[in-house]
Amino acid sequence: MSQIRHALSVKRADDFAQWYQEVISAADMAEESGVRGCMVIKPWGYGIWERIQRLLDDRIKAAGHDNAYFPLFIPLRNFEREAEHVEGFAKEMAVVTHHRLIADGNGGLVPDPDARLEEPLVVRPTSETIIGDAMARWVQSWRDLPLKLNQWANVVRWEMRTRMFLRTSEFLWQEGHTAHETAEQAREHTLRMLEVYRACAEDDLALPVIAGEKPENERFPGAVETWSIEAMMQDGKALQAGTSHYLGTNFAKASGIRFQNREGTQQLAHTTSWGVSTRMIGGVIMVHGDDDGLKVPPAIAPWQVVIVPMLREDDGDAALLAYCDDLRARLVASRALGEPVRALLDDKPGKAAAKRWDWVRKGAPLIVEVGPRDMADGKVSLLRRDALWADNGKPAFEAPSVDEVVSSIPGMLETMQSSLLAHAAAERDARITRGVADWSQVEAAFADGVKNPGWIEIQWSKPTGATLDGIVERLKALKLTLRNVPQGSAAADGTCIFTGDPAVERVLVARAY
Amino acid sequence: MSQIRHALSVKRADDFAQWYQEVISAADMAEESGVRGCMVIKPWGYGIWERIQRLLDDRIKAAGHDNAYFPLFIPLRNFEREAEHVEGFAKEMAVVTHHRLIADGNGGLVPDPDARLEEPLVVRPTSETIIGDAMARWVQSWRDLPLKLNQWANVVRWEMRTRMFLRTSEFLWQEGHTAHETAEQAREHTLRMLEVYRACAEDDLALPVIAGEKPENERFPGAVETWSIEAMMQDGKALQAGTSHYLGTNFAKASGIRFQNREGTQQLAHTTSWGVSTRMIGGVIMVHGDDDGLKVPPAIAPWQVVIVPMLREDDGDAALLAYCDDLRARLVASRALGEPVRALLDDKPGKAAAKRWDWVRKGAPLIVEVGPRDMADGKVSLLRRDALWADNGKPAFEAPSVDEVVSSIPGMLETMQSSLLAHAAAERDARITRGVADWSQVEAAFADGVKNPGWIEIQWSKPTGATLDGIVERLKALKLTLRNVPQGSAAADGTCIFTGDPAVERVLVARAY
Repeated sequence: MSQIRHALSVKRADDFAQWYQEVISAADMAEESGVRGCMVIKPWGYGIWERIQRLLDDRIKAAGHDNAYFPLFIPLRNFEREAEHVEGFAKEMAVVTHHRLIADGNGGLVPDPDARLEEPLVVRPTSETIIGDAMARWVQSWRDLPLKLNQWANVVRWEMRTRMFLRTSEFLWQEGHTAHETAEQAREHTLRMLEVYRACAEDDLALPVIAGEKPENERFPGAVETWSIEAMMQDGKALQAGTSHYLGTNFAKASGIRFQNREGTQQLAHTTSWGVSTRMIGGVIMVHGDDDGLKVPPAIAPWQVVIVPMLREDDGDAALLAYCDDLRARLVASRALGEPVRALLDDKPGKAAAKRWDWVRKGAPLIVEVGPRDMADGKVSLLRRDALWADNGKPAFEAPSVDEVVSSIPGMLETMQSSLLAHAAAERDARITRGVADWSQVEAAFADGVKNPGWIEIQWSKPTGATLDGIVERLKALKLTLRNVPQGSAAADGTCIFTGDPAVERVLVARAY
Repeated sequence: MSQIRHALSVKRADDFAQWYQEVISAADMAEESGVRGCMVIKPWGYGIWERIQRLLDDRIKAAGHDNAYFPLFIPLRNFEREAEHVEGFAKEMAVVTHHRLIADGNGGLVPDPDARLEEPLVVRPTSETIIGDAMARWVQSWRDLPLKLNQWANVVRWEMRTRMFLRTSEFLWQEGHTAHETAEQAREHTLRMLEVYRACAEDDLALPVIAGEKPENERFPGAVETWSIEAMMQDGKALQAGTSHYLGTNFAKASGIRFQNREGTQQLAHTTSWGVSTRMIGGVIMVHGDDDGLKVPPAIAPWQVVIVPMLREDDGDAALLAYCDDLRARLVASRALGEPVRALLDDKPGKAAAKRWDWVRKGAPLIVEVGPRDMADGKVSLLRRDALWADNGKPAFEAPSVDEVVSSIPGMLETMQSSLLAHAAAERDARITRGVADWSQVEAAFADGVKNPGWIEIQWSKPTGATLDGIVERLKALKLTLRNVPQGSAAADGTCIFTGDPAVERVLVARAY
């Protein structure tokens, strides 16, 4: 068996950004499409997204939402009527102005000047306004509330600098939109969905996250409160992995979502919106990847076990393939993490050792190689992606019997799922500095040349307006941003690091994607 | 129990088009969005689509395809290089020309003249060209083939006249794209996917279809062969419910999908593409609907059993709800059509009789009403959507015990699924006229005032070019189109109805959506 280590050409510690790009390419997850700002999500990357979709969709439905689908195109007037929304959001967007192409007379095509739209259409950057229009039609009485909708869709925000999964002009997401009778119910629902996101990130993606409220300057335009889940990448930067917004009556007012309340009078509904996107896949890479490639948590792995037969292109191959397929069938009939085990027999042409390293780079949780000798002994060669190397620097193959491997794989997958989370949480917690008391400590922590400074938790007086603007500028000089005020953190007991006033809460500060 | 019949205001026999619109509205499936040509798919309509997606996706994956995702936007040059494709296709499309909005100084927004795209982008009407670009990058050797991809996506074709589900500017679909070593393999795959569509239509949607090859004039632009499945609506018109194309090397040439073959020389790949869309839901409505609303085949019903408690807003309600929820839990734990039964307890506010008729219009297969008296007797009141009316003109309630209903529902759902298909197939077969020997019979069959003429099968000499154009014009005068040459139909044994030459095959002629 080949002992050659097919590592990536870049290590995390040397150039994290370059390593990230290389993992995406080496794991065959996605690539540039040639269309500005748009990526192609290849089968392995899309398979991970399908798993995330399936698990999150189950959670969203269990929380009482129905899926629906709303138009890709939003008329300009929808943006015009919500001034605050326009100001914060409606700038870099794809605008459709024509509905026909014609020949230009030189073998090329141009938009037909006679087919100019009377009103340009915007490709949705998010759907609050178009879903708000529908809600205004559907909500008449308190009996129609709560109205709880979700949409899986593509959205477009024209981005100048793109990075695969993390920031692309087109991306895939789900956006939930709900309307409620009271502010209290809407706020409660905002937090309920935040908790759904936390559970999905931690239990499905094995991404430890800190859930909390965003400071005023980081709010979604038009929101009264914005909450987020924040994950720490291995380079110490933060990734906002999901947001949940309490929108008050702002969008209800703009769209006219009014209902007759229990007292018989007309009032505005209170709405929420919340979304997570393919960006989460970037988080999975940057939290679970290593210098050999990706590690996919078993719950979201398109294939949890890949069986690689060592084919010789001789008469023995048929028996070997039958042996492997029998193993596959037994695994598929067993269950792990509440679902049938997803096992693939990789019988494509190619050398077994090359295929092994392909699956290592892709991060399949378990690789089972089977050669003629394994078959003769009733055994297999098992490689765990989370324990790839033996102390001697060779791949840490185990040699269980077929019966042993069938009975132990469900437990292995479940252990791997929980240990990925526990490991990432421990790494993160070790890099959060709490109790930072003055600004010079912040400057020192994030001075040029400091590697992987992680996050710091500071106490502050929650300033607003111009004071907050000044703080944001000071942080910006160190490339820092305010992340969130973690739920359930200890009460403030010091002074504001910025103003010297008595602190009212603790807020996380970090560099971020 | 209320005996009021909440029928639709329009009957199928009186105005089929109007009835269709009314079912969509009465079943709460979709509505106009206010955005030109785009619809909102409401939860019940989208729930049906999710079921179709799930079942078809399983079939597509079982046939060895991987899902992936490609850009929404396609550069103009992709259309320019495939002239035939441009000619047939690339006219009515949404064109993005700007990437920013700015204030117009009058409180409005306009596309920013300084943010004009150098090359306009087209919102994908279909993805052959952009997926072809990716295939050209991914395919190097015969070992990379077959390459079998599928995408679930929204596409946009600017339509002047729209009808919900059947023809909208934006619609949802799946598009499969594969590349193969040989013409034979690609043609074989084209037919394999046609068979997948036939199985999905008949076994999942209970839509009887006729699979066959489209005549030359009905081919997808750029295709060498186009195959379709055709379903007959209750008004006798045809609905093309899915197509599968053998593209030869036409798209491979345009995109440069070349590979080193087993002999070591470079050659073009042979490609296929195939798609079905939300249009299929229009077919379900027009095949299975009746004058009371929709009937959803159990395999694609978001809820197969809806339990409606007759709440009195008194102390007895809690016990009644517990009784109903126990029934729901028992049903969900049972299986029908290979999956857990999908049972809903509809405990929303509102009168039970009103809710019953809502679910009848939506076409839920089974409605179980439970009142205090039913509970006292250990029984329920069961209404089957496919056998709604007793001979006395009243709803045909049955009164089984809870044990009886739990044990009989899986069988009822399975019987309903197969009898919907059998009934629709019998209706269709009765309306296909075969052995039509001369043109005057066609004229008589489709003369003004003839109601529901159905389809006719004619024999023809398969003319091409100008002769075919003339035939298409003659048919057009009767609002007829050539549908397809059914697979496995008897050999031709007569003369061509159009040219008098010896016939070579049989082709279906019909009015169509």
